[in-house]
Amino acid sequence: MWWVRRTRYWFSTLLYAGGARLRPGRRTASGGLETPGSCGAELQGELDRFGGVSVHLSRHHTLHGLDAAAFRRLLQAAIQQWRSEGRIAAWLHIPILQSHFIAPAASLGFCFHHAKPHSSTLTLWLGEGPSRLPGYATHQVGVAGAVFDVSTRKVLVVQDRNKLKNMWKFPGGLSEPGEDIDTAVREVFEETGVKSEFRSLLSIRQQHRSPGAFGMSDMYLVCRLQPRSFTINFCQQECLKCEWIDLENLARTKHTTPITSRVARLLLYGLREGFDKIDLSMEELPAVYTGLFYKLYHRELPESYKAATGAD
Amino acid sequence: MWWVRRTRYWFSTLLYAGGARLRPGRRTASGGLETPGSCGAELQGELDRFGGVSVHLSRHHTLHGLDAAAFRRLLQAAIQQWRSEGRIAAWLHIPILQSHFIAPAASLGFCFHHAKPHSSTLTLWLGEGPSRLPGYATHQVGVAGAVFDVSTRKVLVVQDRNKLKNMWKFPGGLSEPGEDIDTAVREVFEETGVKSEFRSLLSIRQQHRSPGAFGMSDMYLVCRLQPRSFTINFCQQECLKCEWIDLENLARTKHTTPITSRVARLLLYGLREGFDKIDLSMEELPAVYTGLFYKLYHRELPESYKAATGAD
Repeated sequence: MWWVRRTRYWFSTLLYAGGARLRPGRRTASGGLETPGSCGAELQGELDRFGGVSVHLSRHHTLHGLDAAAFRRLLQAAIQQWRSEGRIAAWLHIPILQSHFIAPAASLGFCFHHAKPHSSTLTLWLGEGPSRLPGYATHQVGVAGAVFDVSTRKVLVVQDRNKLKNMWKFPGGLSEPGEDIDTAVREVFEETGVKSEFRSLLSIRQQHRSPGAFGMSDMYLVCRLQPRSFTINFCQQECLKCEWIDLENLARTKHTTPITSRVARLLLYGLREGFDKIDLSMEELPAVYTGLFYKLYHRELPESYKAATGAD
Repeated sequence: MWWVRRTRYWFSTLLYAGGARLRPGRRTASGGLETPGSCGAELQGELDRFGGVSVHLSRHHTLHGLDAAAFRRLLQAAIQQWRSEGRIAAWLHIPILQSHFIAPAASLGFCFHHAKPHSSTLTLWLGEGPSRLPGYATHQVGVAGAVFDVSTRKVLVVQDRNKLKNMWKFPGGLSEPGEDIDTAVREVFEETGVKSEFRSLLSIRQQHRSPGAFGMSDMYLVCRLQPRSFTINFCQQECLKCEWIDLENLARTKHTTPITSRVARLLLYGLREGFDKIDLSMEELPAVYTGLFYKLYHRELPESYKAATGAD
């Protein structure tokens, strides 16, 4: 049931973040006004539609000069008020330069939910049972490009400079926030100097406790790319070697990673039986709640099956 | 080139996190000892193999009782020493109850890299040009299960209780840290009471600025599941409705999300032409550097093509 609760909050938060909010910000605790040392300050929070309250410290100018002990008393009074009002959760959004308010909040049970470069968000579950609040991002996403030239049957591979074992692999790497899977095209160009076009998604790898992911998980996607140029001008800082090598050789050599070898075999199969046997096509579809678009990857579906796309 | 740098650090950090370290911890700045107000404390850091230095405040008992101003002087002296030694980056690992050290670090240029419930990690780039440090997790991962019964041609769908539009969708939701894609089986059971077995991965959606993802991105994967039980006992807290409905109807109705409708059409295509037309199979493969295993999803590959799996 844990997950079910989480799911509900996932969609709920989705709606909330989408702009739905039952009421505007309001005073959370008149008691806050009487809190000793609060300098007349109170923690004015905004209610969300799920029974939680969010406090943005950057909007509380009355907190300037407040010391940790005074803030703790103020927060303690607010928590009592929120509990009495039946709030299920409290969120504190704290600018990095006001981080001296974090420890007193933690002493009252708050934990970090996440941090961005210049701020952190703490949360305290006030409801019954275990927390049902949604988590933060859990995966980093790496993208690689298998640039395969059908006419020469050669594929573009690199050897990283900073590896213990120098094995052939497809160029690619950790994607930046907001980057799409198919930006493998740009990434391959930046690493090798070779221009290409996105053709399909070939494989998805999920790995947990991934080294280099700060204890989080890793999703690694390999795309099939069609070369548009062939001259290699690879990044010396990044790569030890970069070559066009015969696909058959890449599929057979021991000097490669299991995933590279597997994808090489997929490409061989596609070359002989048709790439429709191995490709996942990409299409943009509209998101229901937000008006945004997302990219969807799946096996090619005949047009006769696509027709309408359900609600929009 | 930005990405290329990032990639190098991705693999480098991978090796580092894997345990490779050139030297043990050592004094970072003898100057630290002379820092006024440092109570004889110094920030003893551990060097990593990439020229960075990490300081774990939890290991610095001499910092207890140190105020923010004194810590700032201590850190400032350490930064000067690290720069003189040619360090390219500094990492501060700060227990939540020592968060009063965050603001002084920020005043010297440190930013949050990430936070876990009871600690935060700050970083300061000391090298030339823009930071080449690896980022933190950027995606949340949601998983859904399309439980399809070939004999009755019915598929299991739900309507969430907390949606603006009540449309049919496949049961599933945000995955917990460390969960696999194929745990859609457990998630479907917890939400609907229906038991099933993993058959394949059908689609991958990537969405950015995803509402409910705290400004981060979202990866949503739909699996094909084979039912092992049919009695519905759905979570009232989570769902408004849960039914087995005819696949043809799900593919045609407007009362569904675009991705649900698309996957329903994929299932129809698979039902008529063979599920091998739509499935991605899953296999565990060994990670090269860590001895861990990961799950790899791609089109079914004939055994004759698999043979060896490259280096292990």
